[in-house]
Amino acid sequence: MENPPIVILTDFGDTDPYVGIMKGVITKISPRANTIDLTQGITPGDLLKGAVVLWQSIPYFPKGTIYLCVIDPGVGSPRKGIVLETDHGFFIGPDNGLFTFLLQKKYNVWELKNQSYQLQPVTHTFHGRDIFAPAAAYLWNGVSPKDFGPSIGEPQKLPIPILRINHESIIEGEILYFDQFGNAITSIGKFHEEKDTLQFQIWIGTEGKRVIHRNSSVIRIKKNIFIPWAKSFSEIPPNHCAAIIGSSGLLEIAANRQSAERLLNLTRGESIFLINKYKNGVQHG
Amino acid sequence: MENPPIVILTDFGDTDPYVGIMKGVITKISPRANTIDLTQGITPGDLLKGAVVLWQSIPYFPKGTIYLCVIDPGVGSPRKGIVLETDHGFFIGPDNGLFTFLLQKKYNVWELKNQSYQLQPVTHTFHGRDIFAPAAAYLWNGVSPKDFGPSIGEPQKLPIPILRINHESIIEGEILYFDQFGNAITSIGKFHEEKDTLQFQIWIGTEGKRVIHRNSSVIRIKKNIFIPWAKSFSEIPPNHCAAIIGSSGLLEIAANRQSAERLLNLTRGESIFLINKYKNGVQHG
Amino acid sequence: MENPPIVILTDFGDTDPYVGIMKGVITKISPRANTIDLTQGITPGDLLKGAVVLWQSIPYFPKGTIYLCVIDPGVGSPRKGIVLETDHGFFIGPDNGLFTFLLQKKYNVWELKNQSYQLQPVTHTFHGRDIFAPAAAYLWNGVSPKDFGPSIGEPQKLPIPILRINHESIIEGEILYFDQFGNAITSIGKFHEEKDTLQFQIWIGTEGKRVIHRNSSVIRIKKNIFIPWAKSFSEIPPNHCAAIIGSSGLLEIAANRQSAERLLNLTRGESIFLINKYKNGVQHG
Repeated sequence: MENPPIVILTDFGDTDPYVGIMKGVITKISPRANTIDLTQGITPGDLLKGAVVLWQSIPYFPKGTIYLCVIDPGVGSPRKGIVLETDHGFFIGPDNGLFTFLLQKKYNVWELKNQSYQLQPVTHTFHGRDIFAPAAAYLWNGVSPKDFGPSIGEPQKLPIPILRINHESIIEGEILYFDQFGNAITSIGKFHEEKDTLQFQIWIGTEGKRVIHRNSSVIRIKKNIFIPWAKSFSEIPPNHCAAIIGSSGLLEIAANRQSAERLLNLTRGESIFLINKYKNGVQHG
Repeated sequence: MENPPIVILTDFGDTDPYVGIMKGVITKISPRANTIDLTQGITPGDLLKGAVVLWQSIPYFPKGTIYLCVIDPGVGSPRKGIVLETDHGFFIGPDNGLFTFLLQKKYNVWELKNQSYQLQPVTHTFHGRDIFAPAAAYLWNGVSPKDFGPSIGEPQKLPIPILRINHESIIEGEILYFDQFGNAITSIGKFHEEKDTLQFQIWIGTEGKRVIHRNSSVIRIKKNIFIPWAKSFSEIPPNHCAAIIGSSGLLEIAANRQSAERLLNLTRGESIFLINKYKNGVQHG
Repeated sequence: MENPPIVILTDFGDTDPYVGIMKGVITKISPRANTIDLTQGITPGDLLKGAVVLWQSIPYFPKGTIYLCVIDPGVGSPRKGIVLETDHGFFIGPDNGLFTFLLQKKYNVWELKNQSYQLQPVTHTFHGRDIFAPAAAYLWNGVSPKDFGPSIGEPQKLPIPILRINHESIIEGEILYFDQFGNAITSIGKFHEEKDTLQFQIWIGTEGKRVIHRNSSVIRIKKNIFIPWAKSFSEIPPNHCAAIIGSSGLLEIAANRQSAERLLNLTRGESIFLINKYKNGVQHG
C-alpha cells in the first residue's frame, strides 16, 4: 500500500513561515512523507470552523491519513497534546475540541508526552513545530501511537451547535461560519439527494431523520425572511439568496457570484429554520 | 520519462478546504501524482484572468502536464465539463471559456460524462471534487481522454479582449487585470526584446506584427495621460508609472514598489493606446 | 542520504501564478525535486522581514537544503544574482541583503552569471523564473555552485536593526515586523529558557550575554508604557499585552487572541526597552 499523506490544517495563514517550518521539521524526520495543505487559513482561533472543516474533509482522503491540526490559542497552557485514532486515520493536535465531530464511532486517544518525539527545548508558543509536527512525522515513520504517551479517555469537545427538530415541521439550526465566497454554512444537515427529495439525517447530537421536499419547504432567517431552495448557485437570481445543499451535505445560504453574508447581513451563530410547510400532503405552517 | 505533474488553478482561495479536498481525491486515486499550485487565488469567477494566467504559465511546465482548472461560477448549470488536449498537455475543467487562449493550434476536446470516473453522487455545487479532480487523477493513471466521454467540437470561448492596430501608428488594447503588486496587465502584446527594439506580434485575434522603438513611442491612457517606457520596475521614479514589458510579454502599466492601479486610478477594461509617434523616421502623432 | 528539498520564500503572494511558474521551471529541470513553501506572503519588498524569517526558519530544515528566495524589488537593475553557501545549505536570490543574518559563520558566494543555467531570453522583470528557479534546480541536480559564475567576496547587507545594551540594566531594541496575529517581533534576543531564568545572547552585531529574570525585569515602549512578561499567549488577560519569548527566541509583544499591534498602536521600527530593574539583587530602575 502507498504511504498515507500528512494533511495539515492550521490557522497560521500564509504570510508567516510557521507552516513552512513545520514542513521542515517533518522533512527532517520523514524525508519521504508527502504533505498536503488542507487549509492554513482558518480564522485565527476558530475551533468550530476548524472542527467542521475537518469533519467535511476526511471522507476524501485515504484511510490511515495523518492529520496535523494546529489551531491552538491555548498553546503554553496546561491543555494536552493528543493523537486520536479513528477509522479514518490519525489526528494530531491540541486537545481543545478540534476533533469534536470525529468521535461518532470507535476511537482511541493518547497524550503526547514522550519527549523523545519532541523538539527540545519545547517552547511555550509553538507546539506545532515542537510537538505536533514531530509526532506526525514519527507516526508516519511507523512509531506506534501508544509510544507517544498514556491513553486518555475522552478528548475535549466543543459545545455542540444547535440542531434540533422543534416539532414535526421545523428543523432549527444555526450559521456555523462563512466560506470565502460569503456562503453561510449552517448546522442543518446532513442531506443527500434522492430523486426529487432530500434525505435529511442529523449529523450531530441525537438521531433524527426526515424526508424534505424542496417544493413544500422553505428556510426562514431573522424574523420573517423566507428563503427558497435552489439546486445550484447558478439558479439564484442576482441580488437574491437561496438555500443550497452544500458539497458536504450541510444546508448553505448562498448567492450567485455575490456574498449571501453581505446581501442578508448574516452573522455567525444566527438561527435558521427549515420549515416543512406541508406534511403528509397537508399544509401546516 | 518522468510523470508529469498535476497543476491546479482555481478561485477557491486559501481559507477553505476546497483545494485540499481536491488533492485528497487525487491522492486516493493516484497516490504518486505530484500536484503543483499554479494559484488558487484568482478573483472568484474571474474567467478572463484565469484564462490569461493559464496562457502565460503553460510554457514553463513540462509537455504532457495535466492542468486541473476550476473557476466554475456555473457549477450545477448545464455547462459541460471537458478535457482539452493540446500540444502543451491536458486541461480539465468546466467548458466556460477558461481555455480560450489555448486554442491557437491543433486540439481535441472530450466531454467528461463517464460516471465511472466521477465521485458518486455528483453534487450540484462542487464538480472540482466530484468530476474534475477524479478526471485529472485517472488521466494521470493512464486513462485515455476518449474514455471520459464523447468528442466535442469547440470549447466555449470568452469574448476576445480588445487588441487592434487602429492605423499604422496606434495599437489599442485594454487592461485585463491587476496583479497583487497593482501592476495593470494589458492585452497589448506579445513583445520580445531584440537589441534596442521591441518585436510586437499580436497574441490573440488577427495576425499583425510591428517593430516598436521605446524612444519613439509612448503609451496613452484616459484622455491625455501619457506614460513613458521603462525597462524594469527599479527604473521608475517614485510616484510615477511606466510601461513595462511584463514577464509574459504583455505590456504592463507599473510603478516602482507602488501600485500603478492606485496611482493612476486604473480600472479593468479601460482602454490603453500604444502610440508610435515616429514612423519610418517621420513623426506622426 | 535523501535529497534535500528546495524551500521557496517570496513576496509574490498567492493571487498570481508567479510561484507556480517557478515550480514549473524547477519541475522541468529537476522532476524529482521536492519543493516546500516557506512563505510566499512576505509584504512586497520587505527585505528585513524576509531576512529575519530566513534566519529563524533554517534551523528546522535539513543541512544542504536549497533555499530559493525572491524578494526582489530591484529586479532588472544592476544588482547581482547570487548563490550563497553556508553550513545550513544553499541560498539563491538577489544580492540585496536578504541573506544578512546568515553570514555569521564561514560562507562562500558566487554570482549567477552562467547563461547555460538561465532561461533565455532573461527578462527585466522576473528573475525568479529566468535565473533563480533554474539555478535552484540545477544545483539540486548536482551542478557545482562555482559553475554558476565567479566567486564574489561579500554579499550586500541590510542595515543592522538596533540591538544594544545601553548600560548594565537596559537592553534597547526595535520592532522588526508583525506576524499575522498582530504579534510584534522585536530585535531583542535571542533568549532561551533555563529553569526560571532567561539566558540572553545577542543574535546580531556585537557579542553580549545577560541573564534576565522575568520577575525583576519589565519591557517599556513609547514614553511610559510598561509591559509585563508572560510565558504563553494564554496567560495574557483580555485587552492586555505582554512580552513573550517567541518561537525563534526573539522577544515579542503579544496579546491573547487579539492584536498587540492594534491594542498598543505599535509601529514598525519603534523602540523597545528591556529594563532589568534589579541587578545583583539591588533595584536600580
